[in-house]
Amino acid sequence: MTTIAIPEGSLFGIDNLPYGIFSTADSEPRVGVRVGDAVLDLSRVFEDDVVFAEPSLNAFMAQGRARWDEVRAAIRELVTGDVADEAVFAVADVTMHLPIEVADYVDFYASENHASNLGRLFRPQNPDPLMPNWKHLPVGYHGRSSTVVTSGVDIVRPSGQRKGPNDPAPVFGPSIRLDIEAEMGFIVGVGSPMGSQITPDEFADHCFGAVILNDWSARDIQAWEYVPLGPNLGKSFATSISPWVVPLAALEAARIDTPVQDPEPLPYLKGAEKWGLDIDLEVEWNGHVVSRPPYAQMYWSPAQMLAHTSVNGAATRTGDLFGSGTISGPEKDQRGAFIELTWGGAEPVQVGDETRTFLEDGDEIAISATAPGPNGTRIGFGEVRTRILPAIGE
Amino acid sequence: MTTIAIPEGSLFGIDNLPYGIFSTADSEPRVGVRVGDAVLDLSRVFEDDVVFAEPSLNAFMAQGRARWDEVRAAIRELVTGDVADEAVFAVADVTMHLPIEVADYVDFYASENHASNLGRLFRPQNPDPLMPNWKHLPVGYHGRSSTVVTSGVDIVRPSGQRKGPNDPAPVFGPSIRLDIEAEMGFIVGVGSPMGSQITPDEFADHCFGAVILNDWSARDIQAWEYVPLGPNLGKSFATSISPWVVPLAALEAARIDTPVQDPEPLPYLKGAEKWGLDIDLEVEWNGHVVSRPPYAQMYWSPAQMLAHTSVNGAATRTGDLFGSGTISGPEKDQRGAFIELTWGGAEPVQVGDETRTFLEDGDEIAISATAPGPNGTRIGFGEVRTRILPAIGE
Repeated sequence: MTTIAIPEGSLFGIDNLPYGIFSTADSEPRVGVRVGDAVLDLSRVFEDDVVFAEPSLNAFMAQGRARWDEVRAAIRELVTGDVADEAVFAVADVTMHLPIEVADYVDFYASENHASNLGRLFRPQNPDPLMPNWKHLPVGYHGRSSTVVTSGVDIVRPSGQRKGPNDPAPVFGPSIRLDIEAEMGFIVGVGSPMGSQITPDEFADHCFGAVILNDWSARDIQAWEYVPLGPNLGKSFATSISPWVVPLAALEAARIDTPVQDPEPLPYLKGAEKWGLDIDLEVEWNGHVVSRPPYAQMYWSPAQMLAHTSVNGAATRTGDLFGSGTISGPEKDQRGAFIELTWGGAEPVQVGDETRTFLEDGDEIAISATAPGPNGTRIGFGEVRTRILPAIGE
Repeated sequence: MTTIAIPEGSLFGIDNLPYGIFSTADSEPRVGVRVGDAVLDLSRVFEDDVVFAEPSLNAFMAQGRARWDEVRAAIRELVTGDVADEAVFAVADVTMHLPIEVADYVDFYASENHASNLGRLFRPQNPDPLMPNWKHLPVGYHGRSSTVVTSGVDIVRPSGQRKGPNDPAPVFGPSIRLDIEAEMGFIVGVGSPMGSQITPDEFADHCFGAVILNDWSARDIQAWEYVPLGPNLGKSFATSISPWVVPLAALEAARIDTPVQDPEPLPYLKGAEKWGLDIDLEVEWNGHVVSRPPYAQMYWSPAQMLAHTSVNGAATRTGDLFGSGTISGPEKDQRGAFIELTWGGAEPVQVGDETRTFLEDGDEIAISATAPGPNGTRIGFGEVRTRILPAIGE
């Protein structure tokens, strides 16, 4: 038997306990929980429940909130005592996998600073950078589930059509304006049948937890293709999420009011519960911090996003993933996309000894995040780290 | 033993042989093939292959084109002789289910008549109804997989936000402009890994077959929400597909050139194979035919749609579904959506003894389709039939 030591100030103490899918060299992917610098193998310690031997969190998530609470309480109890040696692995010794089997993936656009900046860049002719609907509903679109990957999976630079405003015709080739979008992602544990609606105050009955999300964006492909039906190939080549899913129950101390919503939202978007979240993100470009996006500034809450998604009777399912949209604060060094940070490429940023506008082959991006825990502590989401590979045929 | 009689002129002769998922009162859903007015239970006649006992076609589709050809040839051989009585059911005695487990769902916009009509209706201020990108790439967007249903599943009228151009603020309520989009849907049998591209001439190695697709659209919700990220709640509440998947191999006689594509498409959208399809659709509203959309008019081929989807390296998967977009011919009675047929509601259509603009509660829509088979015969896709139920709370 062994005791899991939790280092002083760890972002993965007993108030966090994120779930993930891990494997070791000689074993299959299964469910683990992170405790300090260790992974506790839940397929071992709860071997009577087969959901923990699955290669995704979906079966566990589908068990529902009462079970999530029960398992979380049991883990907190377990890790204060001794656990079997063979159920504990060092984080450094395991491989992490995509934690969920993604059902539908929807990406929102909930930062007023980001939507305003993109409006100014994409539609400079419009007097108001925000579209008329923006303050009435959380604008979102469906993305591609097949290309959601986790930290450590390299991304091949996408190719596609682009056409500058003065080009006579589009050209085909590797994207030359490859960008990130630093977001948070939320995961549905318990879905809702077609023809039903989820209210904002039912959020915690449906949402299992949160991850960091990087919505890779080829701005040149996107700018040419996106009218009138929205982004497609400019986004569909890859979306990266962090491997540890922080349970909603771990985010109690991070819950805050959203910014004041004016005009007042329609009743289906209103609830008594606070679902703004005080999460701080950090974007590293080749090891240098270039931005610190504040999730606390997001106009629409994830509870409102889920309520909006289902208000037309659309079914939600275990494994649904929805992204917040790029998180950008009011300051330049709080912008969560390089198109904003470099103002469309016009203002290069310093990345160590070099300057950058958009991503170059071989660049590495790491996005990390932390949030308040109880009693002045902090909890961590870990990171999502990705390297850019050259385009096919390059 | 029994012989399956195929009625003279049947749309389901041995040159069609569509696959579906069926069940009877006392049995589980499994794979069947339609022959005349009968369903042949493939889990019985090919009982050594477990894929036919599955409740979706996905496992069979994943086996690949060589196996699809082998099974089709074996069925053609089988049905010319006697088969076990217990492997044959009357179509009237079985329940049909959603034939596939939908992975990603993408909807295109490939009819020039439809895109032009919608442009005139949604953006009357623009001199050119087509966006500048429309003739350079098959415009498409991702839709919601969780709400793809089959024929016979009633649709609850969606609720959501709408705002007329002169309304001071949006209001919430049941959609008052509920519409159809008559389309064909194509199903990926064999996917492609992330970071690879499918060429148009590889289409038949990946596409398993085709269905009729009805992309339900709440025009009032769509008009308010769709800028700048495209349709979301105006479409995500439901998409209906026909239960019988017609194999691509059955569409040989239907293959034609697309209309002339000018300007010439970029090389990645060009192939030597013809993948225009001469399919005739028919839209019935409460039992009265109101439109006959001709698929032959579609500007972009499904092979081009699949090539475009993967050209940025996006993975495709078994069960991916992509819709053609509304099929509208040049004539008024060939328009595949009621917003076009009634010109935004301004020109009601006669539906039996009544007139209609958009759908009313209790209305029933049936879309059917046929295509040329060998030697002057025709093959059928069957139909997708749906009734509209009142909104939640109405």
